[in-house]
Amino acid sequence: MDLDLDLDGAALTAQLVDVPSVSGEEGPLADAIEAALAPLPHLVVHRDGHAIVARTELGRPERVVLAGHVDTVPVAGNVPSHTEGSRLYGCGTTDMKSGVAVQLRLAAHLAAPARDVTYVFYDCEEVAAERNGLLRISRHRPELLAGDFAVLMEPSSGEIEGGCQGTLRAEVTAAGQRAHTARSWMGRNAIHEARDILDVLRGYTAREPEVDGLRYHEGLNAVGIRGGVAGNVVPDECVVTVNYRFAPDRDAAQAEDFVRSMFPAWPVTVLDVAEGARPGLGHPAAAAFAAAVGGTPRAKLGWTDVARFAALGIPAVNYGPGISEIAHTPGEYVEVGWIAECEARLRAWLGG
Amino acid sequence: MDLDLDLDGAALTAQLVDVPSVSGEEGPLADAIEAALAPLPHLVVHRDGHAIVARTELGRPERVVLAGHVDTVPVAGNVPSHTEGSRLYGCGTTDMKSGVAVQLRLAAHLAAPARDVTYVFYDCEEVAAERNGLLRISRHRPELLAGDFAVLMEPSSGEIEGGCQGTLRAEVTAAGQRAHTARSWMGRNAIHEARDILDVLRGYTAREPEVDGLRYHEGLNAVGIRGGVAGNVVPDECVVTVNYRFAPDRDAAQAEDFVRSMFPAWPVTVLDVAEGARPGLGHPAAAAFAAAVGGTPRAKLGWTDVARFAALGIPAVNYGPGISEIAHTPGEYVEVGWIAECEARLRAWLGG
Repeated sequence: MDLDLDLDGAALTAQLVDVPSVSGEEGPLADAIEAALAPLPHLVVHRDGHAIVARTELGRPERVVLAGHVDTVPVAGNVPSHTEGSRLYGCGTTDMKSGVAVQLRLAAHLAAPARDVTYVFYDCEEVAAERNGLLRISRHRPELLAGDFAVLMEPSSGEIEGGCQGTLRAEVTAAGQRAHTARSWMGRNAIHEARDILDVLRGYTAREPEVDGLRYHEGLNAVGIRGGVAGNVVPDECVVTVNYRFAPDRDAAQAEDFVRSMFPAWPVTVLDVAEGARPGLGHPAAAAFAAAVGGTPRAKLGWTDVARFAALGIPAVNYGPGISEIAHTPGEYVEVGWIAECEARLRAWLGG
Repeated sequence: MDLDLDLDGAALTAQLVDVPSVSGEEGPLADAIEAALAPLPHLVVHRDGHAIVARTELGRPERVVLAGHVDTVPVAGNVPSHTEGSRLYGCGTTDMKSGVAVQLRLAAHLAAPARDVTYVFYDCEEVAAERNGLLRISRHRPELLAGDFAVLMEPSSGEIEGGCQGTLRAEVTAAGQRAHTARSWMGRNAIHEARDILDVLRGYTAREPEVDGLRYHEGLNAVGIRGGVAGNVVPDECVVTVNYRFAPDRDAAQAEDFVRSMFPAWPVTVLDVAEGARPGLGHPAAAAFAAAVGGTPRAKLGWTDVARFAALGIPAVNYGPGISEIAHTPGEYVEVGWIAECEARLRAWLGG
């Protein structure tokens, strides 16, 4: 697969979507990105696993980072891509190969930007935090991520989205007692007991706090359930995996306390947690970007690596052509016009 | 592993338990049984997969079948076996390696019984019906199962248990709509929807009909649940596998109708069904056996291959030293005294 960086952003997005790259399987797409960027004389290209980092080395006084993940959630009958009217449909069109296409176009065609630029293409953003490619680079080669300001090209409908919500995954376990199903009254069915865990989830009401002037919206969902020993055994365990999305006025410990308080009757095991980031739009570099791009900043509801840059001390915002509300749905699409619009605004800001 | 058929029934049961034989993994135990029986001059030994059939060929006017399965449910920290007071504990002690030990003792030591005897040791009784070793033999080599009367050595606490309940497995599916968990209100969580399926199961009241003078007791249980797409996706499907145990006054079609009527709001897919068997204790051969063994017949609640013999036209009962109420529990055990008692009664009935 050869990527053609002379295609317009929409056609390039389609090319990217047609190379499936579900988390953990980004190898072929990473190979294609590396092959497309490595020959360009104005870039120094690094590789770390399935992540590619390409940097201008122009000695500019400012360096900015444009980052995007190349993985997607599992394909759901929505590859290859197709166009209907003004929309391009397919797995990853919105989250976030349209953003990656903008990065690639800028990397290829901005040979002498006014600010040095680091383009980061990384893997495993859609899965458990410890597999995240940006985290891996920040541990192996933090110098590659250095910069004054970062733009994460996550879907934001072409508007700046500030901060992000945190995410916590935990297992809530219902216990029972095994028995033969022909004499089920000798045991206690853990799956039947899990009804009460699902009751809690059905009865949950989301908090919608305002943080630094932006309105967030939390969520508490089952993302997995498993139970069962054999087809003739009353099961003694049923495990519900829940995902709590929490506003950036709560830290990891507060998020964990909340989840435990929701399920006081059951053992709760936290699987992973990633804190959010407050909007931070007061930072000078963020404010300058916002002024150049325009629009009215909104709260980012999904967790993004904005939080990871925040933890590295680099102010960062979300800004990309995808539509966050339809990310991870089989019908996800991107408005083709927004891809070129996003590229044009970034090109104007980067100068050169 | 060499089986020593000169050990008493309890010690032989312990030997059998200490060779794990979870369904599908009966090979080593089948090898040991074949190796122990093949040298005996009064038996003709056949093998079919992991099943062994050993027959006397004495030309007696009557032939009876003693049948038992050698597989167990999954081991649950209860191998190897151990003795506490009068009880032998371990996976399969009660269901049904103590019965298999009685079969093996009789096969080895009754060289000239008054009735010809067919000893059947078979695999995969504890899993889906289509894998059942007795079913396989009945298709491949039905002549090996021919007989006037069969005793299935399933756990019955040393009492005769008549007939058996049927069993039906079905999947009940809750549907939803995928979305990113950071914007879960854009989708519909199928796991949360499954709460209502579990509500039906929690609210179920068992039928306890009397059939041919024996009292049965039905059951409807979840035996499995699965759902989940990824840790950050609102799932669009949650599947609950249910097991309906039904009294022998209902046939397969009636059982299916009942399950569908319990879950009218969801798609129901029947995975497998095995009809039960009415008690049938009025049959002369069954009555003769009952008179010889003594006691008061009870209803058999678990499905057993009594139903398979019934379908082949061979009257059959359940009679064995295990305790059905604790079958499939991690703490299952057998009362050691009942093993010898069961062997003695069968020996008296078989004569010779």
